[in-house]
Amino acid sequence: MVTDIEIAQQANMQPITAIAGELGVKEEELEPYGRYKAKLNQSLFDRLQDAPNGKLVLVTAINPTPAGEGKTTTSVGLGEAMAKIGKKAVVTLREPSLGPVFGIKGGAAGGGWAQVVPMEDINLHFTGDMHAITAANNLLCAMLDNHIHQGNALQIDTRRILISRCMDMNDRALRSVVVGLGGKINGFVREDGFCITVASEVMAIFCLAKDIHDLKERLGRILVAYSIAGEPVYAKDLHAEGAMAALLKDAINPNLVQTLENTPAIMHGGPFANIAHGCNSVRATRIALKLADYCITEAGFGSDLGAEKFMDIKCRLAGLAPSAIVLVATDRALKYNGGVPKADTAKPNMEALKKGIVNLGAHIENMRKYGVPVVVAINRFDTDPAEELQFIEQYCKEQGADFALSEVFAKGGEGGTALAQKVVAACEKDSNFHCLYPDSSTIEEKIERIATEIYGAADVAYSKKAKKALKDIAVLGGNKLPVCIAKTQYSLSDDASLLGRPQGFTLNIRNLKLSNGAGFVVAYAGDIMIMPGLPKVPSAEKIDVTDDGRIMGLF
Amino acid sequence: MVTDIEIAQQANMQPITAIAGELGVKEEELEPYGRYKAKLNQSLFDRLQDAPNGKLVLVTAINPTPAGEGKTTTSVGLGEAMAKIGKKAVVTLREPSLGPVFGIKGGAAGGGWAQVVPMEDINLHFTGDMHAITAANNLLCAMLDNHIHQGNALQIDTRRILISRCMDMNDRALRSVVVGLGGKINGFVREDGFCITVASEVMAIFCLAKDIHDLKERLGRILVAYSIAGEPVYAKDLHAEGAMAALLKDAINPNLVQTLENTPAIMHGGPFANIAHGCNSVRATRIALKLADYCITEAGFGSDLGAEKFMDIKCRLAGLAPSAIVLVATDRALKYNGGVPKADTAKPNMEALKKGIVNLGAHIENMRKYGVPVVVAINRFDTDPAEELQFIEQYCKEQGADFALSEVFAKGGEGGTALAQKVVAACEKDSNFHCLYPDSSTIEEKIERIATEIYGAADVAYSKKAKKALKDIAVLGGNKLPVCIAKTQYSLSDDASLLGRPQGFTLNIRNLKLSNGAGFVVAYAGDIMIMPGLPKVPSAEKIDVTDDGRIMGLF
Repeated sequence: MVTDIEIAQQANMQPITAIAGELGVKEEELEPYGRYKAKLNQSLFDRLQDAPNGKLVLVTAINPTPAGEGKTTTSVGLGEAMAKIGKKAVVTLREPSLGPVFGIKGGAAGGGWAQVVPMEDINLHFTGDMHAITAANNLLCAMLDNHIHQGNALQIDTRRILISRCMDMNDRALRSVVVGLGGKINGFVREDGFCITVASEVMAIFCLAKDIHDLKERLGRILVAYSIAGEPVYAKDLHAEGAMAALLKDAINPNLVQTLENTPAIMHGGPFANIAHGCNSVRATRIALKLADYCITEAGFGSDLGAEKFMDIKCRLAGLAPSAIVLVATDRALKYNGGVPKADTAKPNMEALKKGIVNLGAHIENMRKYGVPVVVAINRFDTDPAEELQFIEQYCKEQGADFALSEVFAKGGEGGTALAQKVVAACEKDSNFHCLYPDSSTIEEKIERIATEIYGAADVAYSKKAKKALKDIAVLGGNKLPVCIAKTQYSLSDDASLLGRPQGFTLNIRNLKLSNGAGFVVAYAGDIMIMPGLPKVPSAEKIDVTDDGRIMGLF
Repeated sequence: MVTDIEIAQQANMQPITAIAGELGVKEEELEPYGRYKAKLNQSLFDRLQDAPNGKLVLVTAINPTPAGEGKTTTSVGLGEAMAKIGKKAVVTLREPSLGPVFGIKGGAAGGGWAQVVPMEDINLHFTGDMHAITAANNLLCAMLDNHIHQGNALQIDTRRILISRCMDMNDRALRSVVVGLGGKINGFVREDGFCITVASEVMAIFCLAKDIHDLKERLGRILVAYSIAGEPVYAKDLHAEGAMAALLKDAINPNLVQTLENTPAIMHGGPFANIAHGCNSVRATRIALKLADYCITEAGFGSDLGAEKFMDIKCRLAGLAPSAIVLVATDRALKYNGGVPKADTAKPNMEALKKGIVNLGAHIENMRKYGVPVVVAINRFDTDPAEELQFIEQYCKEQGADFALSEVFAKGGEGGTALAQKVVAACEKDSNFHCLYPDSSTIEEKIERIATEIYGAADVAYSKKAKKALKDIAVLGGNKLPVCIAKTQYSLSDDASLLGRPQGFTLNIRNLKLSNGAGFVVAYAGDIMIMPGLPKVPSAEKIDVTDDGRIMGLF
């Protein structure tokens, strides 16, 4: 079988200037990074400020198997299919993190005949946004520890530091560390830990900032620590926001690339949806809506994570409203949710499907709560039994959701035209988008609402630490903010082993953190970790480059 | 007074394609990064493989004051002056590290009217090379700790791990850390520490690698640890070199930019000269020699560090030979070496100059030991008394070195034509370049040779740890390699407070490390640290970006 990277390397790419030209982007509004990547400059935003917006289509999914359900693939293929049926669409996606690339999951540029290219560049350093975010975050941390070392004028309490260094890598050894060892010249000893870059507040701010001014304001508002007296200390108290914004000033311009079929794709920002808010930047979505009639965007993992946050955080804060939701599922994943081991999901098993389809049911129900038409897209595999597919179709009909098979992995845009037709039709339906909860609810109320209405929990339990954090956050005015729950992606609950549609469980909130610059409160549920580890045999062991510079082993 | 960044922001830049075109570089041999930066592709190397080489001119300096002596400024101005006198020159420099940019020293793109541009881009992320090196290094470290966590098949001794994570940041809190805390899921607890990226072996390898094949071979040879049984463990045993090389495959192509006067400049690789080998990449120097009649290159800090390593490491390993050496000094720094506090060096003080000029004498003498003609360039300040300058000129004459005033900071290339004429003349002289010591000497012999002949030490003392390391390194075949001494830049000795020309001191070797992939042995002298810290008021506090994206406060 031909691999993703082999397909990608044979792509017939257009120069990025041509892709931009078709979107009406002028040459001076484009900053090329090589021949096939470019950043869209602020001048483009300024020129299109008052242009009408296209329709926003969100692609989300059921709870994934460890291999993922092909959400990015479906998004890319749907964008291409839109072109096939004569519609002008732009795909907007998150940019990949090196963590999964070198770990288990692989890259994040789609798959098969529905990929964004240049695949290797996108999956490795792309235009350097991740590195810029890492540097900005770590500069803040270095300035904080330096402030303490140089006399600690702000009287920062080294036991109550709230930010952590980050790395765009899966590196479990850095989860919990002690820094500042070695005596006086190395500063004060304290407990610390690294998160993966995509989980950092700087990444969230990057994705939510409107422009440089807003970016700098938000960076300055990051709550970095408490003082010994219990007063909050912000990044602006360290005079860090200017240099941080300087590090990010090019990065906040969205990246333009293309799909295998030369459909424009904007990839920008990349928070994970399990440990962060899970959607690409507001700037990318906004400019895509100005440039095309349809902006096909994706939010990470299942709809309980990515889609919920997309709507309750991103749409709320940026004033966006989706016209349709595409819910991606696979026959295999539904059987997996019915209790079949992953290795056996390719075999026919109607019993398991019937058992696992409740997971799809939950996601359809949940998405309908936002008032937006839902189209279920089954990412079809060759081996899917026809009767199982028919069963899923019938189930969707009963749940009041549209249904389409998607074969974009095998066929590119041509394999997605049925889906595209359904999506266009859904966008014409009455949409009555609204967020799940009002700003005015307390943080506990917001968490309870998500837990019971989206996850299906019976109740929410808070650890002692979480209760203390809730109080601290309320004092700082955090109650008015939306909530970003960090939770396993494998289950609707906070327990990865509970598949299907678990009921009656308690959602356990271990801790909370005020992301004051991003403008949300992170609630850590269950044992989710913000720094992943590498597996026994990491993908990195198979990634290689030939003497003439061709990358091998990426997927 | 107009600042460096204000001058840089008013630069009349040519499109980088035009700069490349004048060098005869074809469009397909160039990978643009925006309009004013580009990478030179491997295809250019292939095409010019058999083209004749230009002359190699090394710019070095006396022992610097904390502000630096203007070596980069002189290199840039000399390149521009070459054009003024009708010579085709390319300037090759190191690329800046974010550490000094946010710390005390500032950027590394020259100064005044002798700068490389776009100055802000170059000083911030440039084309991402530093980040790629950081990522490659940290991937190796993550794979190492993961190997140990996943069963430790190689039986790595966690007490004898030789590589460390890195960050392109001045962050003293990371010098000495403990990682892997928090229990079984976070791996094994062990002592660790971060170095700044520019001190990493991956940076050294990056700078010495001939091509991707050689890069991968060298990465695979990195000695990462010893096993419990005392056997060496290499990066290739972890299967890490392929993915590391994949991360570096674009980065190893040199970066083309331009000076304020549109002279081509190649900036690539950036090891510090105090804690690493201090010169730009071999690939950059090689291609510059193919593209121009003169390649003006620079090696970090004083000639005891940068120039010694340039010749004994880089030229030795890459088969290069300089035709002339420019030794940069300032009247102020010579008075500083005569014991005047930095703040008072602008005042006339012939006594101090007479006392401090022995520092210049030592550097002239040292450089002549390599068989290459020396031209002293005095980087002139407005306030320098004429009689002091005359004294320096006379002194140089007595030492058998050519002499020229350089006013490139104030006047650009026009201020460097006298120097350029001297350099061209020096390049026509007989050069009899040879390294200081033969490959066949032992590591101790090599260190002693450098210590006594270059630094002026009476002898060398080894700590117990260093003696053990010497034995280990000899067992692994390291004796045949050149030596890279990590030492303070402020003195010819390993004690920063000994200015002028110290004599009779002992050089203290604290530890040694086999950089098996780079192909040299690092000897740590005195208390030099491989992770700098930020000062009381870091430059970062003043760096800012305006709402329309203009960077402020960089210097």
